Amino acid sequence: MRKGKEEMQSTVRVAVDAMGGDNAPSEIVKGAVEAVNECPEITVHLVGQLTAVQEELKKYTYDQNRIKVVAASEVITNEEAPVNAIRRKKDSSIVVALNLVKNGEADAFVSAGSTGAVLVGAQLIAGRIKGVERPPLAPLLPTMNGVSLLVDCGANVDARASHLVQFAKMGSIYMEHVVGIKNPRVAIVNIGAEEEKGNLLVKETFPLLKNCDEINFIGSIEARDIPNGAADVIVCEAFVGNVILKLYEGLASALMKKIKAGLTSTTISTIGAALVKPALKRTLKDFDMSSYGGAPMLGLNGLVVKSHGSSNALEIKNSIIQCISFKKNDINSKIKEYIQKED
Amino acid sequence: MRKGKEEMQSTVRVAVDAMGGDNAPSEIVKGAVEAVNECPEITVHLVGQLTAVQEELKKYTYDQNRIKVVAASEVITNEEAPVNAIRRKKDSSIVVALNLVKNGEADAFVSAGSTGAVLVGAQLIAGRIKGVERPPLAPLLPTMNGVSLLVDCGANVDARASHLVQFAKMGSIYMEHVVGIKNPRVAIVNIGAEEEKGNLLVKETFPLLKNCDEINFIGSIEARDIPNGAADVIVCEAFVGNVILKLYEGLASALMKKIKAGLTSTTISTIGAALVKPALKRTLKDFDMSSYGGAPMLGLNGLVVKSHGSSNALEIKNSIIQCISFKKNDINSKIKEYIQKED
Repeated sequence: MRKGKEEMQSTVRVAVDAMGGDNAPSEIVKGAVEAVNECPEITVHLVGQLTAVQEELKKYTYDQNRIKVVAASEVITNEEAPVNAIRRKKDSSIVVALNLVKNGEADAFVSAGSTGAVLVGAQLIAGRIKGVERPPLAPLLPTMNGVSLLVDCGANVDARASHLVQFAKMGSIYMEHVVGIKNPRVAIVNIGAEEEKGNLLVKETFPLLKNCDEINFIGSIEARDIPNGAADVIVCEAFVGNVILKLYEGLASALMKKIKAGLTSTTISTIGAALVKPALKRTLKDFDMSSYGGAPMLGLNGLVVKSHGSSNALEIKNSIIQCISFKKNDINSKIKEYIQKED
Repeated sequence: MRKGKEEMQSTVRVAVDAMGGDNAPSEIVKGAVEAVNECPEITVHLVGQLTAVQEELKKYTYDQNRIKVVAASEVITNEEAPVNAIRRKKDSSIVVALNLVKNGEADAFVSAGSTGAVLVGAQLIAGRIKGVERPPLAPLLPTMNGVSLLVDCGANVDARASHLVQFAKMGSIYMEHVVGIKNPRVAIVNIGAEEEKGNLLVKETFPLLKNCDEINFIGSIEARDIPNGAADVIVCEAFVGNVILKLYEGLASALMKKIKAGLTSTTISTIGAALVKPALKRTLKDFDMSSYGGAPMLGLNGLVVKSHGSSNALEIKNSIIQCISFKKNDINSKIKEYIQKED
């Protein structure tokens, strides 16, 4: 009981990249303020160019003890080569914020900036948990009956079988302890349900996952079954994961456009559209990625959450709030334990 | 002029697998009858178990000179290992029909049966065009402004760069001469727009495509831009292509279910739903894969079209009709010419 109470009261300190993303700094600052106002256990370091960030902050009312502006004069853009940018721009918001995590001044880092720079910076500065071969980026995908975790969607392609086994373990921990799915079902993305199907990587990984006691492996998943929620943790290498994630976003958005056009294509349908709109909006909200916050990068010292480049305040707020359960449930200790079991 | 007239009158002979697919033989036979009734230049060999096929045929009125039933006592199921099934079941509808193509009695083969068996059988029996390293399966994907060809979605994964270059060439010929897109834009599926991004295969293939004079290569395409129709020919290896194709189907179907649920979730929305339904249906028809027929397998002697396992009569009819422009435009001679230029 005492431990539970302490956990409830402990603070989660989040370093937020105020300069990252298409809507920085305005939406980032707004999202940070909303997170702090909604969750008493959160404090935020807003890292970025002082004047710009302070101008935005002036617009809001919040507990000034819980948002601190940290100066970082440089900004890393999407166009820059990640490794170079991280090495050269020592005073960029990404590097300064990650150093707060490294030095123990922050528990987590949230950014909507360059995915490459965040992933590279996280590994170089925060560093990997001992034993983790490759920290994956693991977004939640909306499905017909909830969400599934897709690991890996990161920048490091051409993964090995041992990486995928670690993705399965880390993804299981995340889904069980952060999202709250008991004994999450793990599947590997494949081009057929049968064990003998697949490319070389899948054929090599399949038996390893099958023999892995720590996870609930249910076999192959075909891409068509992902939206049905047929598995909780969906394992694949990053090239395939990236294709799945981006097609999910692109196709959902294209279909919405088609539907909007269809709804208003005749006079009668336009009248009907006014009647269906509220109900339709509510239902489709489940398929809106921004309500699920950002994608965690698993297996690092500290937590790194990558939010969409197009994030608005709501998505930033959700990304920040998501850090609470990650810290409270001590995900990194659980990952350490799982990974070391392997050795 | 004389040549044009001859082309108009020449017959396209299609061998149809009457036993393949979830709805065989009823929907297959129905689709064949509809194709023959709609297109005077088509004749069909319906290959399958005599009694079953003849029972279905009895239901319809058609020109009896243009549909011939060819006996094949065996059926290959989805569960069978393709290579074994093709080798052992010599009297299966797939093997018998492919032999009609091989022996010059049919110009094309249409099947909704086991994809693996069709792909393996096509290569073993009809055979590859000289110089073609790997015949890809190339379905049309619906997009916001038409269709794009996705090559390869076949069963042979772990492709080499030289395969992808041939996919690009054959896909360009198909889009230009069958679908009618002048100078089709070719793109390679990648995880970013920049040339230096990608996995080993993409990095190796990119410069080869860039230096290929015969095609209109526009660079990388991210999966999110596929539904926008950002390229006409989308090149990738089969594992990635299979993921794209199946996620396309799965996500579109999941979203439709969500939308239907949303439309009828309240009394008011149910009234509105009745008003929007016709217009919505018309608009979404563009995103219905079955209206585009099956996927051609490119680079074979003769044409092989793989229709969805769930094909209904409409899809079978469209798959059969699609064979006309393939033959009339002499796609295989064009492929031969392109591939041999490479040597």
